[in-house]
Amino acid sequence: MSTHTYKLTIAYDGTLYHGWQKQPNRPTIQAAIEKAFLSITGETVSLSGAGRTDAGVHALAQVAHFHLTRDKDPAKLLIGVNALLPDDIAIKSVEKVDAAFHARFLAQSKTYRYFIHNGPIRSPHGRQTAWHIKKPLHLTKMRTAASYFIGNRDFSSVVAADHDSKNSMLDLREIRIVKRGEQIVITLIATRFLKYMVRNIVGLLVEVGIGRRLASDIVPILDGRDRRLAGRTAPPHGLFLVEVDYGCHSERI
Amino acid sequence: MSTHTYKLTIAYDGTLYHGWQKQPNRPTIQAAIEKAFLSITGETVSLSGAGRTDAGVHALAQVAHFHLTRDKDPAKLLIGVNALLPDDIAIKSVEKVDAAFHARFLAQSKTYRYFIHNGPIRSPHGRQTAWHIKKPLHLTKMRTAASYFIGNRDFSSVVAADHDSKNSMLDLREIRIVKRGEQIVITLIATRFLKYMVRNIVGLLVEVGIGRRLASDIVPILDGRDRRLAGRTAPPHGLFLVEVDYGCHSERI
Repeated sequence: MSTHTYKLTIAYDGTLYHGWQKQPNRPTIQAAIEKAFLSITGETVSLSGAGRTDAGVHALAQVAHFHLTRDKDPAKLLIGVNALLPDDIAIKSVEKVDAAFHARFLAQSKTYRYFIHNGPIRSPHGRQTAWHIKKPLHLTKMRTAASYFIGNRDFSSVVAADHDSKNSMLDLREIRIVKRGEQIVITLIATRFLKYMVRNIVGLLVEVGIGRRLASDIVPILDGRDRRLAGRTAPPHGLFLVEVDYGCHSERI
Repeated sequence: MSTHTYKLTIAYDGTLYHGWQKQPNRPTIQAAIEKAFLSITGETVSLSGAGRTDAGVHALAQVAHFHLTRDKDPAKLLIGVNALLPDDIAIKSVEKVDAAFHARFLAQSKTYRYFIHNGPIRSPHGRQTAWHIKKPLHLTKMRTAASYFIGNRDFSSVVAADHDSKNSMLDLREIRIVKRGEQIVITLIATRFLKYMVRNIVGLLVEVGIGRRLASDIVPILDGRDRRLAGRTAPPHGLFLVEVDYGCHSERI
């Protein structure tokens, strides 16, 4: 029996979900999408996501793949599944891809973006999509601190305490910090990300930005490879998975 | 007994409210703020807003004024009231102003902004703050149509059917239409706005943008001064009151 492989690009507001990954008795993004595809194809599909986003984290372009035994028109799947999904999840595209495509293993890099609202008064509109920090953040110090994270290194100090990966080496290629009015956007690009890594890095950058730590404190924290040296984990609601790059594997068939 | 007058600048997410104006047994922005001020001042305050926003409409900078019999520190009022208000309403500033200040009568102009998400797939993040239109909108035609609304004229054709104002003359100074990616932002500046006026104008501009009407159809609609000639009212959730301008009356005392 032949197999047909489909690649999805997915946007979601993670506010009401317990993250991407399917879990018993809890609403998750993966479960919602699998249910919708079961309804329209009659097949039990199993989605493989490019990465697990935590509870409350958002996505503009999460990527996942799945297989169907029957050949379906991607354009019809797109319309059908969006009609069934709730408003806080949208499939941006469905593409037929080579059977060898794998959303996680073939990802060359991922881009996450963390939004901070830095101003004295809270904003009713950004409250579910940005971390509100009242104290003024010192951007130059934050950029200096960010520079110490860049490179191919061990990120044990900024993973979750319950992180189960044996290997914490990865290449963090870029951290860009941009301010526009009261909005600060921190963009991070790496070959891969470990659990809580972005939120722990942002937590440290904010501590530097408000003067609680020095930018140079990042060096011993990273060298210590001990999670207890790092600081507060930034809340999930400011975080967006914005891009997964597949290099030459991104083409449709 | 002396009276002390305060000017408020207010941001709100109108999603869960039946508009600005106080109504029996319904949550409104005005009622929520009056309740918070009663709690912190012990005085029953009566807010006068610069304008009534409809149910579901948002504000970045609504303006209102009220009087207190006792002199209070505006900085303390600001902190106190924000601590009591729900997350979807924020007082951006409290200023002591001259007793002659009036949020509605002294307003020189107001600026509203209407957000449209124009793309084939819905956006989970803009769903409560933008009107999603799937068909591509023709911006040049919309800008031509917008130009016919500009000027000091009678806007009877684009007010609500139950509009109670005797006078529908006002000066619509500017309509600016800007596109960035799939987001279209329509900014309107006028001396004042009538009930449903922005939403009816946007409804007509969208009908021109999708080709259901010609730009030149706007002329007979305006000349007809008959609400039944106009089209669909745009939904409230794309609309933001973004500025109220008081000219020389805006200074604090």
